[in-house]
Amino acid sequence: MARIRTAKDVSRKEVIIKAAAKLFHEKGYKAASMRDLAVKVGVEAASLYNHIRSKAELLHDICFDVANIFNAHINDVETSGKPPLEKFETLLRFHIRQMLENFEEVYVSDREWRYLADPYLSNFQNQRRNYRKRFAAIIEQGIESGVINKIDASTAVLIVLHAVSGIESWHRSTHKISGEILEENMMTILIDGLKK
Amino acid sequence: MARIRTAKDVSRKEVIIKAAAKLFHEKGYKAASMRDLAVKVGVEAASLYNHIRSKAELLHDICFDVANIFNAHINDVETSGKPPLEKFETLLRFHIRQMLENFEEVYVSDREWRYLADPYLSNFQNQRRNYRKRFAAIIEQGIESGVINKIDASTAVLIVLHAVSGIESWHRSTHKISGEILEENMMTILIDGLKK
Repeated sequence: MARIRTAKDVSRKEVIIKAAAKLFHEKGYKAASMRDLAVKVGVEAASLYNHIRSKAELLHDICFDVANIFNAHINDVETSGKPPLEKFETLLRFHIRQMLENFEEVYVSDREWRYLADPYLSNFQNQRRNYRKRFAAIIEQGIESGVINKIDASTAVLIVLHAVSGIESWHRSTHKISGEILEENMMTILIDGLKK
Repeated sequence: MARIRTAKDVSRKEVIIKAAAKLFHEKGYKAASMRDLAVKVGVEAASLYNHIRSKAELLHDICFDVANIFNAHINDVETSGKPPLEKFETLLRFHIRQMLENFEEVYVSDREWRYLADPYLSNFQNQRRNYRKRFAAIIEQGIESGVINKIDASTAVLIVLHAVSGIESWHRSTHKISGEILEENMMTILIDGLKK
């Protein structure tokens, strides 16, 4: 008889996904085992399977949860009616905060998505490409309305997103400035160069 | 009897190192085998050992060659007598060009150095830390002399170097702008935000 899923099961699953994100960040998806995960969660390996089917399912959940968060956000930004430079600033601050507050999940979805199995892999790649195009379109609007310097918009997206991924080193750093100061520093470096 | 190394041996070794950099970039150092390397070079696996001792030696040579290139360059910049902003610009352009023209070697030394064995590992880490400190010191000089915005210099180095590593995606991109335009775009985005 199939068990009925309760709220407690759902939150248990969330705990497992969170632990999986930490583990995949530390060891990489490929090297991580369900046994490692069980140790991290503090249960027997077998009992993990009451909540999830496989390591692949965990990667899938992490990657698509993060994709959903970013897609929902860019939807809001696009329909916000804000001027382009403010849209760009809002997107960038959101990326920075996600890297600060939701670090392991964002890191894993950014680096380990290549281990997704098809059809999820190609779906994820399409979403990624599409997101970057929408981000670039906002920069294009800024260029057209004369508030952003004439640059190649796709290249700007690439540069800016890689710069944000540098927060990874900040997490590893022992003598670190606060998240708020980091965010302001990033905005200074990355936004002011684009302003006309 | 030990063979005498000739100029031909040396250039053969360079060919092997170049191929190793390509291979480590494609597969990662850990997953790459000497057999893969032999296929890439177009020789029998056994004959590679006439020129190099081990896979570890190849990683060592790649990482330390790149470290030497960057250290020699920052020495020149420090003693150039140029004003701080120009020093920063020179360093940044050098990083961009190395990522364009010496891509696989720079990529491998930036990502795969963690597989070096001690004492090389700690030596390399020290050189890396030291390089970033010297880079940050140049930004500090710019802040002190009032030409660079007040920001945390170590964070600026971290952001800028990660942004440059975004050139990795540019290499993978199919519809790409030229290296020259990429360089100018990067300078616009990364320098102008720092200028007062």
